[in-house]
Amino acid sequence: MARVGIIMGSASDLPVMQQAAEVLDELKVDYEMTIVSAHRTPERMFDYAKAAADNGLKVIIAGAGGAAHLPGMTASLTPLPVIGVPIKSSNSIDGWDSVLSILQMPGGVPVATVALDGAKNAGILAAQIVAAGDSSILENIRRYKESLKDKVMASLGKL
Amino acid sequence: MARVGIIMGSASDLPVMQQAAEVLDELKVDYEMTIVSAHRTPERMFDYAKAAADNGLKVIIAGAGGAAHLPGMTASLTPLPVIGVPIKSSNSIDGWDSVLSILQMPGGVPVATVALDGAKNAGILAAQIVAAGDSSILENIRRYKESLKDKVMASLGKL
Amino acid sequence: MARVGIIMGSASDLPVMQQAAEVLDELKVDYEMTIVSAHRTPERMFDYAKAAADNGLKVIIAGAGGAAHLPGMTASLTPLPVIGVPIKSSNSIDGWDSVLSILQMPGGVPVATVALDGAKNAGILAAQIVAAGDSSILENIRRYKESLKDKVMASLGKL
Amino acid sequence: MARVGIIMGSASDLPVMQQAAEVLDELKVDYEMTIVSAHRTPERMFDYAKAAADNGLKVIIAGAGGAAHLPGMTASLTPLPVIGVPIKSSNSIDGWDSVLSILQMPGGVPVATVALDGAKNAGILAAQIVAAGDSSILENIRRYKESLKDKVMASLGKL
Amino acid sequence: MARVGIIMGSASDLPVMQQAAEVLDELKVDYEMTIVSAHRTPERMFDYAKAAADNGLKVIIAGAGGAAHLPGMTASLTPLPVIGVPIKSSNSIDGWDSVLSILQMPGGVPVATVALDGAKNAGILAAQIVAAGDSSILENIRRYKESLKDKVMASLGKL
Amino acid sequence: MARVGIIMGSASDLPVMQQAAEVLDELKVDYEMTIVSAHRTPERMFDYAKAAADNGLKVIIAGAGGAAHLPGMTASLTPLPVIGVPIKSSNSIDGWDSVLSILQMPGGVPVATVALDGAKNAGILAAQIVAAGDSSILENIRRYKESLKDKVMASLGKL
Amino acid sequence: MARVGIIMGSASDLPVMQQAAEVLDELKVDYEMTIVSAHRTPERMFDYAKAAADNGLKVIIAGAGGAAHLPGMTASLTPLPVIGVPIKSSNSIDGWDSVLSILQMPGGVPVATVALDGAKNAGILAAQIVAAGDSSILENIRRYKESLKDKVMASLGKL
Amino acid sequence: MARVGIIMGSASDLPVMQQAAEVLDELKVDYEMTIVSAHRTPERMFDYAKAAADNGLKVIIAGAGGAAHLPGMTASLTPLPVIGVPIKSSNSIDGWDSVLSILQMPGGVPVATVALDGAKNAGILAAQIVAAGDSSILENIRRYKESLKDKVMASLGKL
Repeated sequence: MARVGIIMGSASDLPVMQQAAEVLDELKVDYEMTIVSAHRTPERMFDYAKAAADNGLKVIIAGAGGAAHLPGMTASLTPLPVIGVPIKSSNSIDGWDSVLSILQMPGGVPVATVALDGAKNAGILAAQIVAAGDSSILENIRRYKESLKDKVMASLGKL
Repeated sequence: MARVGIIMGSASDLPVMQQAAEVLDELKVDYEMTIVSAHRTPERMFDYAKAAADNGLKVIIAGAGGAAHLPGMTASLTPLPVIGVPIKSSNSIDGWDSVLSILQMPGGVPVATVALDGAKNAGILAAQIVAAGDSSILENIRRYKESLKDKVMASLGKL
Repeated sequence: MARVGIIMGSASDLPVMQQAAEVLDELKVDYEMTIVSAHRTPERMFDYAKAAADNGLKVIIAGAGGAAHLPGMTASLTPLPVIGVPIKSSNSIDGWDSVLSILQMPGGVPVATVALDGAKNAGILAAQIVAAGDSSILENIRRYKESLKDKVMASLGKL
Repeated sequence: MARVGIIMGSASDLPVMQQAAEVLDELKVDYEMTIVSAHRTPERMFDYAKAAADNGLKVIIAGAGGAAHLPGMTASLTPLPVIGVPIKSSNSIDGWDSVLSILQMPGGVPVATVALDGAKNAGILAAQIVAAGDSSILENIRRYKESLKDKVMASLGKL
Repeated sequence: MARVGIIMGSASDLPVMQQAAEVLDELKVDYEMTIVSAHRTPERMFDYAKAAADNGLKVIIAGAGGAAHLPGMTASLTPLPVIGVPIKSSNSIDGWDSVLSILQMPGGVPVATVALDGAKNAGILAAQIVAAGDSSILENIRRYKESLKDKVMASLGKL
Repeated sequence: MARVGIIMGSASDLPVMQQAAEVLDELKVDYEMTIVSAHRTPERMFDYAKAAADNGLKVIIAGAGGAAHLPGMTASLTPLPVIGVPIKSSNSIDGWDSVLSILQMPGGVPVATVALDGAKNAGILAAQIVAAGDSSILENIRRYKESLKDKVMASLGKL
Repeated sequence: MARVGIIMGSASDLPVMQQAAEVLDELKVDYEMTIVSAHRTPERMFDYAKAAADNGLKVIIAGAGGAAHLPGMTASLTPLPVIGVPIKSSNSIDGWDSVLSILQMPGGVPVATVALDGAKNAGILAAQIVAAGDSSILENIRRYKESLKDKVMASLGKL
Repeated sequence: MARVGIIMGSASDLPVMQQAAEVLDELKVDYEMTIVSAHRTPERMFDYAKAAADNGLKVIIAGAGGAAHLPGMTASLTPLPVIGVPIKSSNSIDGWDSVLSILQMPGGVPVATVALDGAKNAGILAAQIVAAGDSSILENIRRYKESLKDKVMASLGKL
């Protein structure tokens, strides 16, 4: 059963958001992924966010660009932690709009924001959150971090 | 009957948003004003926005600060024009977050954005929109613009 | 008879501004479109803006880039609502100049600003304003919003 | 036993970071709080971060200003999720440096960033993460969100 | 007869713009000073700018804040050089809007922009321009620059 | 004899700065053009600036990118008006560094700044300054401005 | 004999620049301090920078605000390392102009830039540079860094 | 024996950082170069920085992009001067994050920051620092600066 829900505002966000899915695969965390637009399908967003906890999700990753309201509105509708991925979409001013409209949430309704186009890190963070209740996942994250070191050491020969 | 709905995310936005009400009074346009928080009362926002057109409103003015989602989400839930007022609230980064999260709406869902803390202009714009279907209001706006000139001319003596 | 006037500072703005015209076609709102440069043809701008209301226009859409003065100056010369489209032209600093010189109008003279290069949304907003005095257009907007949902739902299969 | 570790770069960050502690008290989540400076006590930071998981912590909240390296370095040294609080300290350029040096982490090492000075939201987010393995805390969060609504409704009388 | 015209958008700009007048007094260049609002008195702006050259002016200094259109529009209406003073007025976003809406003029219509609130430098620059046709003023500028050195040397004792 | 001196920090600035020369040709104003680097040839800059007025120049146009010191330092060394052209060179952060290091001169030493890469406008402004002492040039500028209008009117057919 | 030269553009920069002097006192490095204005006393700047190496200086600290040319011009005139301190002076746009006009030097002429108003760090850096040829100073720096740790540990009791 | 250590966060930074090596070759200063990632190999960074002074290094050049912690953390772990090179990597927001997270170090721990992608200047600055204890290198720098002048003079023919 999916423990992570990945949602995005548009199919055009898929190339970025897929990186969250890939790292979750690597870390052995089940997820589901779909399109939910805050501005074009607000009712669908309401239904998705309201049902998320009952559906067994532990955390939601929401990616959006421009005036990005999907992560923050989802966070307002669920008790689950929500991770926001600011996307540098074509209608964005260098990504600043995406970043600020996700990061600067008012007191009471947090969104865990990652770097611009940082869907990979959103996936890792989601796994870390799932790991708060499942120590086997914590072990996977430890191994993942070791693999990061190995890659750096392997690259030393390039200089 | 109110033709303009003024909503804001928090009571702390009132000193700014009241300027919209004042100029609507001056231009003889009826309005209603209340607090609707996108993040703390999302259902209330849904209900307000969905009922607005049937309730006789012609335009909605929505003010919010920080990651300001109220104007854009309201716009996604009503066919009426929505005017957004970015507010430089205490949790804002110099107002840039408020401006960008209201202005940079995706194609299909416009928000008519005014200047930072520009609630007075939001009120005038709302009156101009009402005037599209009521020429008496257009006349009030003409007189208002004349009064702006008069004030400039009266200030010449100050130099 | 045209109810929306679309003006732009230069023929090079046409690829962006044409999107306003296209969505107005879709929403069945008549419009006219021409070039009016604030800086190179100021008299023409004066004449256009001063005559607009008498010519039957209900709203003006003005697009410009860089130090973009066309929307604000037009707004100063007509009682009609003016929608400003900031254009990321070649002489713009990432669009910030276009956005700020349109958005930050002083109290008394609003410009309804849309997103950078957001001419499509300017067209929808113009239709919403016309709809304030013509309920048949409001119906067209409702249908348009439904079509946005349909497109999202149709894209679900892409994942 | 503390499940949340709150660390900050300097005693001057305490007025902001205390808000995380207060909301954790309200949500009934145990925490510990201390000063760890990335730049002045790097060994202490190493020791703290390396021991955190074994010490029973489930999540770390790290606050810092200016070139804020504490959250990101802590994240590089632990498999636990790390929440970063950008602080608008006196040596910060309007908070932009704090935000960007926490948010823009490279792929592989996420920091869950909250709004500038958003320590309250960091506390709520930490509780949401703990709740991933403790459903009683999830219930506390639900009640907290209800209380946010109640406060908005209670403020309606102010208009 | 005045050779420099100083105009500003509002009486509230006077404390800044007066510095231009003071330095022109010091450099022995005659000037006139008045209020001309691009947005509230557009016809007055047209008349002033169109008549300026025939009235004997050699250069115009125009100060404005926010979406500052006065300098650029004046430049579009006169063959004279126009100096723009961006003013950090109360309705400005840290002065960026004032700077960009004056500086970023399109090709064909220059505005000689000085620093934010730099009215003193606008006065000196106006004198330098008048000096292009009057070598006695050039001599005054030489003396003024010497006085700047003297002030620095006099301040050495403060250390 | 040259009345305008055009200098630039590097041969790589020539494609931009040549536009100043071209418009001066069109306006019948004599100029000279050379390379003077503030940072690589500071003595040459000193000599050029100190001799400029005696050499008959009426105004200097200086273009530079990045930490652009050429316009400001030239202005500190001559009583003549100096026009600064911020260049978006390859080592620039989107042009902001070029703009700010030219525009934000301290009180006492103005630089007449034009738009980013706005060398064409620098040329026109130089001609306007020369015209302060030569009415035949003013006439050329009037004609030039008329030609701008003609080009707009000619472009109307493109829509 | 002074091994560090501290210069600043104006006596108003003294409160910031004095912090460089204080930390050099603490680290037992001799210095001299004076006012040198790039824009008001360019010849003095030339003389100071050209003579610095022969006068026994090992490094120069230059502080300036706004369009800050003193550090970069000094660097162009001496083979010594130059440390630049961007100062958030009253005529600065939030410090961005000071930072960018010091930091963004072209290839060939480095300025070692420290944080906005970071004169204390400039002093430490100058001592580190002197220490490259004097190991006793390196020892002082080691002790200084230990004292930073001690202060953090002493502050733990404040929580 | 290497007197300059060049480190970078990733092999992808090599094209930029190589410019530091090249100019050090030209200035006859020995260096070593390797990859050290603050976030992926924090222990390696600790070991490298802690051993640097004992290994005979006089200065460290550290390049990194995005939330760039390598220069600042290295500076916290060594008494040697550290030069930071902000890199405009693919995961950077126009370089602002790299610049601010390197430049804005807290009081006590300086990083000598150079321009965005300014590795060449980092190499020159490192040589200038080495020259503080080796006058033969100072002579090389003098010659290098002369060669900069020669190149400008040679380019004059291009106009």
